[in-house]
Amino acid sequence: MTVSDLSSRMALGIDIGGTDTKFGLVNHRGEILGKGRIKTDYDEIDDFINALYKEIEPILEQHNAKSQLEGIGIGAPNGNYYKGTIENAPNLKWKGIVPLAEKMTAKFGVQCKVTNDANAAAYGEMMFGAARGMKDFIMITLGTGVGSGVIANGQLVYGHDGFAGELGHTIVKPGGRKHWSTGSEGSLEAYASATGIAITAKKMRAEFPESILNNYPEEQINAKTVHECALAGDPTAIEVFRYTGQKLGEALANFVMFSSPEAILLFGGVIKAGDFILKPTRMHMERNLLPIFRGKVKLVFSELDEADAAILGASSLVWEK
Amino acid sequence: MTVSDLSSRMALGIDIGGTDTKFGLVNHRGEILGKGRIKTDYDEIDDFINALYKEIEPILEQHNAKSQLEGIGIGAPNGNYYKGTIENAPNLKWKGIVPLAEKMTAKFGVQCKVTNDANAAAYGEMMFGAARGMKDFIMITLGTGVGSGVIANGQLVYGHDGFAGELGHTIVKPGGRKHWSTGSEGSLEAYASATGIAITAKKMRAEFPESILNNYPEEQINAKTVHECALAGDPTAIEVFRYTGQKLGEALANFVMFSSPEAILLFGGVIKAGDFILKPTRMHMERNLLPIFRGKVKLVFSELDEADAAILGASSLVWEK
Repeated sequence: MTVSDLSSRMALGIDIGGTDTKFGLVNHRGEILGKGRIKTDYDEIDDFINALYKEIEPILEQHNAKSQLEGIGIGAPNGNYYKGTIENAPNLKWKGIVPLAEKMTAKFGVQCKVTNDANAAAYGEMMFGAARGMKDFIMITLGTGVGSGVIANGQLVYGHDGFAGELGHTIVKPGGRKHWSTGSEGSLEAYASATGIAITAKKMRAEFPESILNNYPEEQINAKTVHECALAGDPTAIEVFRYTGQKLGEALANFVMFSSPEAILLFGGVIKAGDFILKPTRMHMERNLLPIFRGKVKLVFSELDEADAAILGASSLVWEK
Repeated sequence: MTVSDLSSRMALGIDIGGTDTKFGLVNHRGEILGKGRIKTDYDEIDDFINALYKEIEPILEQHNAKSQLEGIGIGAPNGNYYKGTIENAPNLKWKGIVPLAEKMTAKFGVQCKVTNDANAAAYGEMMFGAARGMKDFIMITLGTGVGSGVIANGQLVYGHDGFAGELGHTIVKPGGRKHWSTGSEGSLEAYASATGIAITAKKMRAEFPESILNNYPEEQINAKTVHECALAGDPTAIEVFRYTGQKLGEALANFVMFSSPEAILLFGGVIKAGDFILKPTRMHMERNLLPIFRGKVKLVFSELDEADAAILGASSLVWEK
């Protein structure tokens, strides 16, 4: 295939989330030509795929893309790259092992790759985002949970079973905070996710009655309101992010000594806290590194638009060698 | 090159340690045709290389290997794969950045690859040892220190700067035991190395005056004597290994969630303790894993003869694609 041929080829990127599924038609330059979303909560996977097709087919028609469609990339919770399946995803209705790639190929008539959403996001950053040209980096998504994708030697690290890169579930404090879902004690996700930040904030505001965090009702304590209080100069809110950054930085140091990435990309709602979280994260990462690694690793925020990143990331799987 | 051509090619494997440097002439099947050792403590790198050449040249002559020599692989502390250098190795006399590969090629007239000893050992296991046929595994060497090599997608993970895989320096207990050399607090090496085991044993025997560990003078407390006491049924000695295994197992769980290896290979003097360390290690690895990873990862001892493994590992770098 010549370069000009390739440049006219297109990919479908699909991001399956617990609530919504987003999709987009993306060209080889990472431009989204058309997009949409449907609810994820179909009881039957076949009904879900039919609903997807019904939405996507007109977009393909509109862009004359049917013959130009190279394939479909899907980011999904517990997505398995080798098998093209979703396996026992706790937050989806489809139980057991869902042969998603096989079913999508049967419906759409093109190849389909599946991986977890964070892996897809990492590959998207390498093709279209802040990691362009990098061969070794780690992407950490700090949202409701903590996801991750690891690129080494220019390739996604899938591991022997396709499930590699669950850095959010690594233990940063043995015997520490119990995770609300996995039950593990002291995992990174228990501290550095938006959920973890809310827990930390609720604990800390109870210890410091003078904190303006106490002006909010319990259900409004979240990463966003903590950020507002930090911006207003509240020392307790600032300490919530400092503590979170410490835990995150300690975890990142361990990741760096594992795969020595050129950069760690941070993505997701939590990074809106900016320097409140970035500065302590960097400090505690550096202080826990061997000297040989210090001052070398870029710690950067993703450049991709959050609304489009999942679609771009999923679509980029189609171009993976 | 045909298969028969390749099978007659040979590689030099060189393992540079703090005290001794071992070398061997190895064929493509992993048979060591000749070997030897010299002291490492030459003040000047050029004198060291000349001394090496003087020892190796007769071996090459004897095996008619000069024209069949494909290259040289070297495992060395702080060995940098990309640059072919040794950089600021704390336990070697040569300070700063030593252009080892360049100097070896000038002297021996063949290509030379350098990496750290643990990476070389991992590659050797993939070519000649317990990891034959595996594409994703982690090798942990438990000796005076804790070294590691990570293989993902069938390749060594070198990272962007060539220094990846320092798992011994990851923090398993934040704020924990201070490392005697790096100063970091709570690193895996501080607990799971032979040095760490001796420290644990000295602490624990002080707490339990009835332990037979107290029959030894201070300087004889080491992994070997602790093993002897464990074999004799001493509960304190057994607890030393259980505690060590717990720390090791917690670390391994984090490594598994990073790269999802098919196996973790353990190597080095510490594994002579056998089930005293293996059983608690496996238990604490499993209990810290997400369910998706449980019961999948083989935890095995290396099959390579310890005396030859470093030479074999170093030589295997020559055949790396």
